[in-house]
Amino acid sequence: MKKFNVGILGATGAVGQKFISLLQGHPWFTVTALGASERSAGKKYAEAVNWIEAVELPDDIAQMTVLECDPTKMSDVDLVFSGLDAVVATSIEESFAKAGIPVISNAKNFRSHPNVPLLVPEVNPDHIEMIKNQSFDPAGKGFIVTNPNCVVVPLVLALRPLYDAFGIKAIVLTSMQSVSGAGYPGVASLDILGNVVPFIGGEEPKIASEPMKLFGQLKSDLTLEMADFPIEATATRVPTIEGHMLAVTVEFEKKPQDLNAVIDVLKNWVSPLNGMNLPFAPKIALKVYDDERYPQPRKNAYNENGMQVGIGRIRKSNVFDVSFVALGHNTIRGAAGGAILNAELLIQKGFIK
Amino acid sequence: MKKFNVGILGATGAVGQKFISLLQGHPWFTVTALGASERSAGKKYAEAVNWIEAVELPDDIAQMTVLECDPTKMSDVDLVFSGLDAVVATSIEESFAKAGIPVISNAKNFRSHPNVPLLVPEVNPDHIEMIKNQSFDPAGKGFIVTNPNCVVVPLVLALRPLYDAFGIKAIVLTSMQSVSGAGYPGVASLDILGNVVPFIGGEEPKIASEPMKLFGQLKSDLTLEMADFPIEATATRVPTIEGHMLAVTVEFEKKPQDLNAVIDVLKNWVSPLNGMNLPFAPKIALKVYDDERYPQPRKNAYNENGMQVGIGRIRKSNVFDVSFVALGHNTIRGAAGGAILNAELLIQKGFIK
Amino acid sequence: MKKFNVGILGATGAVGQKFISLLQGHPWFTVTALGASERSAGKKYAEAVNWIEAVELPDDIAQMTVLECDPTKMSDVDLVFSGLDAVVATSIEESFAKAGIPVISNAKNFRSHPNVPLLVPEVNPDHIEMIKNQSFDPAGKGFIVTNPNCVVVPLVLALRPLYDAFGIKAIVLTSMQSVSGAGYPGVASLDILGNVVPFIGGEEPKIASEPMKLFGQLKSDLTLEMADFPIEATATRVPTIEGHMLAVTVEFEKKPQDLNAVIDVLKNWVSPLNGMNLPFAPKIALKVYDDERYPQPRKNAYNENGMQVGIGRIRKSNVFDVSFVALGHNTIRGAAGGAILNAELLIQKGFIK
Amino acid sequence: MKKFNVGILGATGAVGQKFISLLQGHPWFTVTALGASERSAGKKYAEAVNWIEAVELPDDIAQMTVLECDPTKMSDVDLVFSGLDAVVATSIEESFAKAGIPVISNAKNFRSHPNVPLLVPEVNPDHIEMIKNQSFDPAGKGFIVTNPNCVVVPLVLALRPLYDAFGIKAIVLTSMQSVSGAGYPGVASLDILGNVVPFIGGEEPKIASEPMKLFGQLKSDLTLEMADFPIEATATRVPTIEGHMLAVTVEFEKKPQDLNAVIDVLKNWVSPLNGMNLPFAPKIALKVYDDERYPQPRKNAYNENGMQVGIGRIRKSNVFDVSFVALGHNTIRGAAGGAILNAELLIQKGFIK
Repeated sequence: MKKFNVGILGATGAVGQKFISLLQGHPWFTVTALGASERSAGKKYAEAVNWIEAVELPDDIAQMTVLECDPTKMSDVDLVFSGLDAVVATSIEESFAKAGIPVISNAKNFRSHPNVPLLVPEVNPDHIEMIKNQSFDPAGKGFIVTNPNCVVVPLVLALRPLYDAFGIKAIVLTSMQSVSGAGYPGVASLDILGNVVPFIGGEEPKIASEPMKLFGQLKSDLTLEMADFPIEATATRVPTIEGHMLAVTVEFEKKPQDLNAVIDVLKNWVSPLNGMNLPFAPKIALKVYDDERYPQPRKNAYNENGMQVGIGRIRKSNVFDVSFVALGHNTIRGAAGGAILNAELLIQKGFIK
Repeated sequence: MKKFNVGILGATGAVGQKFISLLQGHPWFTVTALGASERSAGKKYAEAVNWIEAVELPDDIAQMTVLECDPTKMSDVDLVFSGLDAVVATSIEESFAKAGIPVISNAKNFRSHPNVPLLVPEVNPDHIEMIKNQSFDPAGKGFIVTNPNCVVVPLVLALRPLYDAFGIKAIVLTSMQSVSGAGYPGVASLDILGNVVPFIGGEEPKIASEPMKLFGQLKSDLTLEMADFPIEATATRVPTIEGHMLAVTVEFEKKPQDLNAVIDVLKNWVSPLNGMNLPFAPKIALKVYDDERYPQPRKNAYNENGMQVGIGRIRKSNVFDVSFVALGHNTIRGAAGGAILNAELLIQKGFIK
Repeated sequence: MKKFNVGILGATGAVGQKFISLLQGHPWFTVTALGASERSAGKKYAEAVNWIEAVELPDDIAQMTVLECDPTKMSDVDLVFSGLDAVVATSIEESFAKAGIPVISNAKNFRSHPNVPLLVPEVNPDHIEMIKNQSFDPAGKGFIVTNPNCVVVPLVLALRPLYDAFGIKAIVLTSMQSVSGAGYPGVASLDILGNVVPFIGGEEPKIASEPMKLFGQLKSDLTLEMADFPIEATATRVPTIEGHMLAVTVEFEKKPQDLNAVIDVLKNWVSPLNGMNLPFAPKIALKVYDDERYPQPRKNAYNENGMQVGIGRIRKSNVFDVSFVALGHNTIRGAAGGAILNAELLIQKGFIK
Repeated sequence: MKKFNVGILGATGAVGQKFISLLQGHPWFTVTALGASERSAGKKYAEAVNWIEAVELPDDIAQMTVLECDPTKMSDVDLVFSGLDAVVATSIEESFAKAGIPVISNAKNFRSHPNVPLLVPEVNPDHIEMIKNQSFDPAGKGFIVTNPNCVVVPLVLALRPLYDAFGIKAIVLTSMQSVSGAGYPGVASLDILGNVVPFIGGEEPKIASEPMKLFGQLKSDLTLEMADFPIEATATRVPTIEGHMLAVTVEFEKKPQDLNAVIDVLKNWVSPLNGMNLPFAPKIALKVYDDERYPQPRKNAYNENGMQVGIGRIRKSNVFDVSFVALGHNTIRGAAGGAILNAELLIQKGFIK
């Protein structure tokens, strides 16, 4: 198989660094271009970046010269991963798509665009078809695909089997989010050591709205019939490094016979990616924990290289139908790793050649 | 005013130590007897205890000889505070009550007893009357009063004004509880550093049931008509030292006109203890935070010596009527300090002389 | 006794906020002026500040209008406390001294000035006389006094008795410093949660040099004969909130008879402030711990309102003469609280009237 | 190459679990026997253990029946790894050696035995020869080899090049040790969250004495001429999970020309294991960091699967010759992983067949 040349937009930021780390040794992708702000462009990457990843900065990447985030200067790529800041993402991502370069973005800017898939490959792979309605590149080569907010990823993965089996009427959840979700430098240690902060700006509306698109029904005209159920979220920050933990309670449309029916649905669910051999697809996308002490962020967020979502404490709810906790690695599964899996699916489906 | 001699049952345990710390310099109470297990009895307190309180062990307490938890050996007290382990609390507490000694207990054993008040002075002070139906001591001098679980205290304080104004139909909450709630040694550092544990054994049933008694209606025969609404709780442990944080969403019986009506009810609520001059009563029992980043455990749990409960992020709920977060100091307001306030109210009402 | 009107320079910063917190209810001082940058000047303090102190912002302070740090605009004060950033402290502090206003500074700018006392009242109170050689204000009313680096304060307090009894030939130490030492936002949580950072920029040279001035001998011409012994320090950052911990090993000039002789010197040492009734002077300035598990930052840094220094684990050194650990509260004893105690001594000695 | 059958002594403990985790997929070793206390013997491993490793308990191990730690019951093994508690290790380890089974032990019991190597393969591989003087098994097949304390491992790896080049006269160090060093449940979270504990029982004497044996000179009679220089250590516990950090200052016998001479010696040092292809040998055994912010426990302890030691902040000392910080993964490099590497070297050298 030929390898694809990939560029990273926002290569010096926290998400950009995660893309670089995760793509080391990837069987399909070779990082050949690093894009960042004008301030960094022209410098060696090692000089432009404050490297915060735990793995060491690879030598070949360190020596690469940082480019401007401009499709004319990063033309020799088959696709770009975008870890751009929302402040600049709209125009840059659009310029790449227009230039015929697929943009696999972690930024929030195009998540609600009617023709841009908000994609979690195990959850709504059919939404990829929406690309065909995009008009950025009349030649059809360039397009934009996004992945959702880092809390939404474990939420929709845990809910997919339940939504299909029982329908969802309402959800109440509390998220306990790790500090890496705020980027770097992000949360001040004085604010979070031995503490909980009960507010994360902008987070709760995303948690309430993005699942509506993810569970949307693709119509024959390749537009979406959005799902429609209320989600009440309290987003909090806790002193963990990686892994967002959710405490969720759900009311179903159709009452399950009993709790075992719910657990069976979760345990018997089969990811639509099974058998596709996508390098970043976890063998078990949704792991069901029987031991009520799990999943836990520090111990389980890195399962299957951070791409597996965990669900545990599945029990009857006193108020709704069922309650559970879910865990996902926020900077891998919920960000860069999720975007890489999106790219893999796009290749497998023939959208990137 | 005369000072009362008080004994501490379970004086070497974490709750017992907190009683001792908090009672230093108390204007009404003098600690004159320390009761612990046979293993400790006969030793100087300083030798029997592994002192874990941040304040230093007071010299006079250090020199006291530990006694057995037996009313014949601790007879020279006007009341006892019980920090006994649940395994031994039933018979010991009963023996003191029978011997005519009021027992102000933090143990869970008698919390659901039909004639024992489960008391939070600002929430259900009238429940004190239930003591009159107790039969431990025919002479009426000895009795048992309990305080609720450490999550339930901030919950019912935050809900009291709302329950009165709007009635409550259902509650969903997630608690983020500090490690001090598990006593000492309690939670292993390997389990909780940089982590969240999504389960605390036995906690969720208490959170669901105790508020039913606290909001119960005292009938003319001094029995309770229990409240009746479902509470769905997910109890989690987070790496904080003191202060239990709750994310709560509530459905009311009567719809408030708007969010301001709810906030007004909370801000205008007046504690029934106001004007009583009880030493441990906070000036503001329920503080309403307007800044959405607060309350926070590390910064706000110690407000008013740990006796104030905080409520913040009051907002319209997408699913129910209103959501908020609440915070209470678990080992002070939710345990030893709450018990001391109970004793103060009992004295003020003439139940202890 | 008349109360002194005090101004705070750098009132919106972390040190300035600590000054405001600590001065609430001070029997000698009333905060009457708050100075900050031009950006803040003219605003209400509550609007200009991002209040990070755990105690609530006092209402009267909240309503004060922030002034520029200019002696003509803050003229109605008897002294100022400076929590200014080093970038601007030199000219501002000098302007106040020239205007006849005593400056009690926590900034490092004048610490090595030959006529400016680097003062820890229990350690070198006689150095106050150096003020008389200052030429900022010919009228002699305005002057500058500084307090040392936050690691140096517990170090010199622990060493004072030993230096006097045995002389010091060499010191090796490691500091384990809390995150509050870096101000706000300071250390990123991603850098320090569950981690140790083995470097703090600029810290080690201060630790090596400032004690030479503090242990300097005041000569008849009011200049100092500096002490002269080498200090090797490794300054590290650890995930604690308040309290700098030091592991110290010392070689003496004169060999003590045995370890007990060293411990006796420490236990029998009497602070020169005893009997002076300075409000911020701790009753026991240097507490000797016999239990080898103490002192500990979280449990002991707040002793005596954060003004007491702890020393423990005093033992024979395999390499030098004696080893010990020492602890001091960095933002109280090692910064704002230390400066307030300096001001109190200056008043008691008649330097501020 | 044939695979060796290995048994784990103390298989249910923290060290035993780490052996099991690390040996998964090992190219030379297959775990075929699990020994634990009588209480556990006879149970399935999954039922006997409270599994605390982050990786999941492997299925085949989970199903194995736990045996007693008795060589007659674990006879079908080529060697055993011992993670036994010191209380029982002496007699059990001796019984296996006598039965002709090599014991690669992490326990401290035989570390100071005159004929038992205290082995770090990169540091003193020649000490293996001491085995020939052991008399446990006259047939020469059974023997005992130990690895040192978890602080000593990074210390001697960092010192080996310096000791050879310059000789060592004295060392002062402070260790900042992670909570995993205390096993499970080990350190109570109430003791260490946001705190430093300045004492670890029994640790400092080991740090002072074990390096003397490790740097000992093997004589022709296969006994050791011990090294002889003083080490003053302060062992502290900090809130990190894995990785012991050391701040070290060293006085040399021969003065290096300058700091660069010291750095060159460290950078140019070549591990004696290079070229041997031992599976657990790190490619770079001692990594020299130029960036003064590193190494850090959370970010660097897992380098090369936790087998690499890091050294940084190499600088001239004000008191001695040179100072630096060093880091090693305590439960891998400093315990189970180190023991596995010992076994690999023993096989490579023909001591286990």
